[in-house]
Amino acid sequence: MFVMCVRNILSRSAFTVTLKRHSWRRCSTSQTETVDQVTTLLQLCVDRFFVSPGHANVELFQRGLCCSYGPLGMELRRNLLDQWWYSVTRSGAQVFGINTLSSSSRETPTGGQGQLRIVECEQLKQRLGQKELSKGRLAEEVHMLLQRSPSMRTNLLQGALEQFVPSLELVNRKLPFGLAETGLCFQPAEGSGCSAEVTQTSLVWFCSPRTSSQWLDHWTRQRLKWWRKFALSPSDFSSNEVQQEELEQAASRGVRIIYNFPWGQEVLACVWSRGDAELLHIHKGDRSKLQHRDGRRSIPHVVSVTANMDRGAMAFLSNSLQQLKREESKQKLHQRKVLKLHPVLVPIKVALNIGRGATVELRQICEGLLQEFLEAKISVWPGYLETLPTSMEQLNAKYDEMGVLFTIIIGENTLESGLLQVRSRDTTIKETMHISEIKNFLFRYISAADNI
Amino acid sequence: MFVMCVRNILSRSAFTVTLKRHSWRRCSTSQTETVDQVTTLLQLCVDRFFVSPGHANVELFQRGLCCSYGPLGMELRRNLLDQWWYSVTRSGAQVFGINTLSSSSRETPTGGQGQLRIVECEQLKQRLGQKELSKGRLAEEVHMLLQRSPSMRTNLLQGALEQFVPSLELVNRKLPFGLAETGLCFQPAEGSGCSAEVTQTSLVWFCSPRTSSQWLDHWTRQRLKWWRKFALSPSDFSSNEVQQEELEQAASRGVRIIYNFPWGQEVLACVWSRGDAELLHIHKGDRSKLQHRDGRRSIPHVVSVTANMDRGAMAFLSNSLQQLKREESKQKLHQRKVLKLHPVLVPIKVALNIGRGATVELRQICEGLLQEFLEAKISVWPGYLETLPTSMEQLNAKYDEMGVLFTIIIGENTLESGLLQVRSRDTTIKETMHISEIKNFLFRYISAADNI
Repeated sequence: MFVMCVRNILSRSAFTVTLKRHSWRRCSTSQTETVDQVTTLLQLCVDRFFVSPGHANVELFQRGLCCSYGPLGMELRRNLLDQWWYSVTRSGAQVFGINTLSSSSRETPTGGQGQLRIVECEQLKQRLGQKELSKGRLAEEVHMLLQRSPSMRTNLLQGALEQFVPSLELVNRKLPFGLAETGLCFQPAEGSGCSAEVTQTSLVWFCSPRTSSQWLDHWTRQRLKWWRKFALSPSDFSSNEVQQEELEQAASRGVRIIYNFPWGQEVLACVWSRGDAELLHIHKGDRSKLQHRDGRRSIPHVVSVTANMDRGAMAFLSNSLQQLKREESKQKLHQRKVLKLHPVLVPIKVALNIGRGATVELRQICEGLLQEFLEAKISVWPGYLETLPTSMEQLNAKYDEMGVLFTIIIGENTLESGLLQVRSRDTTIKETMHISEIKNFLFRYISAADNI
Repeated sequence: MFVMCVRNILSRSAFTVTLKRHSWRRCSTSQTETVDQVTTLLQLCVDRFFVSPGHANVELFQRGLCCSYGPLGMELRRNLLDQWWYSVTRSGAQVFGINTLSSSSRETPTGGQGQLRIVECEQLKQRLGQKELSKGRLAEEVHMLLQRSPSMRTNLLQGALEQFVPSLELVNRKLPFGLAETGLCFQPAEGSGCSAEVTQTSLVWFCSPRTSSQWLDHWTRQRLKWWRKFALSPSDFSSNEVQQEELEQAASRGVRIIYNFPWGQEVLACVWSRGDAELLHIHKGDRSKLQHRDGRRSIPHVVSVTANMDRGAMAFLSNSLQQLKREESKQKLHQRKVLKLHPVLVPIKVALNIGRGATVELRQICEGLLQEFLEAKISVWPGYLETLPTSMEQLNAKYDEMGVLFTIIIGENTLESGLLQVRSRDTTIKETMHISEIKNFLFRYISAADNI
């Protein structure tokens, strides 16, 4: 009999899971344990190829900024962005995707404050090297060069507001409709003089003035539900109304979607009701261009729905890491870490490995299965290519930390009878299955998780 | 009897299609007609929401740069990027996706030449405003600020070379393997002082020195085949070996993939055999870190495979536009433009419209079908929402210009017998089909086109 102590380290909801031979218990977490949790989480992200190594890079990630992602992190964020896109463009509402430039030469309403501009080095150095210029003229010339240099976008709102007029044609001037975009935005990093990149998603929703508050509620509900759909512990995602004094300029109402990280709460997403001021400003007050069909001269109101998907990826990693402790004897303490990412988000759905048997033949079977999975768009880890000897236990531990949903073992038995072994990440139970059934089994499992 | 004259405007391969009542002929194109073709193509891209309006924006697009895309252009480029990703990561070769930052503070091997840097405006203005500084000190301070500012990436190679060492762990130090990435790169725009954005795809392939030339050939073949797979007129895509004197620094061989635009040839993609110099440079000559398992102290060679996907989108639009002329009588000349984009790339697969009948009921059927299509990930145009009266002919003309594969008409007949009308973009033939069959029909049609 084992007694296992489960720390769903980043979750506050109590739960108990009972398996045949194990009993799992949740422990309370102290301050120092929280620090441990964070260290463990970040180390796992590096060790298991979610995030590239290096202290500075990991810090970017923890701060909710874009960093250098390894293959698993890249795929996780990609899945997250895809899911966001589907949920917004297939919600039944009229939403169109757009793509705007990340830098622009026009004046922005925020003026020069904290702005980042792209400067061509050579041109600036040329100016600095002009010996005949007075200091005043030099400063002036640099100023002018700066003014002409394109500025980097800090959000995706501006681009969508600009695209409002051509898009109005698309919908025969009928409201409501939305413009969706995902892409990099740039922010000045505090103090360092460096810039920081963030992967943002944006839905800019145009509606009649009297419905804007209802739409804000609609999108808040829809978004919170979306975040919670993929969570192991949904209660860590919450929303709160922004206080009057904290409202962004031009906004009349705002709601934030928050995630409880072990180190405190952070904002994942915002929904703002912004009125018509920014739309009018960008289109230079030309009301006739902005009017919709049933508008009786009213200008559409804007509801903006934004999220930071780098922080989103971090939130789901944090939410899904379970640390399980098992005391085998007084001397020995086993630790198991499992990344229980949602089947739709998890970067690798299945790992293919070989057991004992004729290696050449077993590999051939693996190659065949690999192709079959790839064609069905099921991401596979080709574990059978690894030639270093590893115990089954080490292998499972590694795959659990990567979040791999199922591990398939092809062995002698497969050659004889077509049977293979499938181990589940979540239950750790091993099942025997026929090779002809495995693809459909995985496909159904992932689809079912998607449709809940 | 009609006589129709087909100008497959951007294709040089002659072909003849015979339908029951029409005969189609290809015409030769003169210089002035080429100008017309380009104007027609660009106008269509704007009118049909591929590219946002505005002369400057359309010019960016024509020059093969990233521009502000409308919903259809955005979706086309998205499909193109997805296809690229699948073709590279599911080729059976060991390819891992990564994501690196688009700006970086470290020194780049290209030095200061033509470099773009992100400068924080306020900081620079502060320096310029310091009255007590001499001119020399001022120039020095600005220089230093510039040196500390992060530079924008011009390609995705650098990032992948940096990720080589952590990735080597992933593959147990075994070659060959590749790192794939897609993302924005920034280039100084000639003359204007502006920067230009390009959506690049990159596969950086690491292999043993003796196989690098074979791999270059392999990836060239694989890539050319990929471009041609989606083409209406594949012969417009070609490859040629780069001459010795035009080779990039460090490269020993190079091949370019070219597209024949109406205004001349442009480079879509490049495959370079780059040796090991850049890899060694980035890792500061630390050979022990770079050695692979069967290497006997040799350093991997790098083959880089890059493409410009903004120009790629332009190439496929250009390649797929057919202009058809039909003389009904001597006075009347009908023109039909059809965007015959590949079923996998085309942004909208199907349009849903209503014919005569009880509007409320017909709309309900459309809503149901829309949901069914969206769940099957088939992109739909909700034409039934349009309330302006349009003739069937105008509607077909519009959808042909958008490239919509099939147009479905739901009418009285549908209410009575469940039958609907399906019009094909490519054949213009209208078929009657039962409503229960339509989703599978579309799904099979698109899958079949994908697997050819």
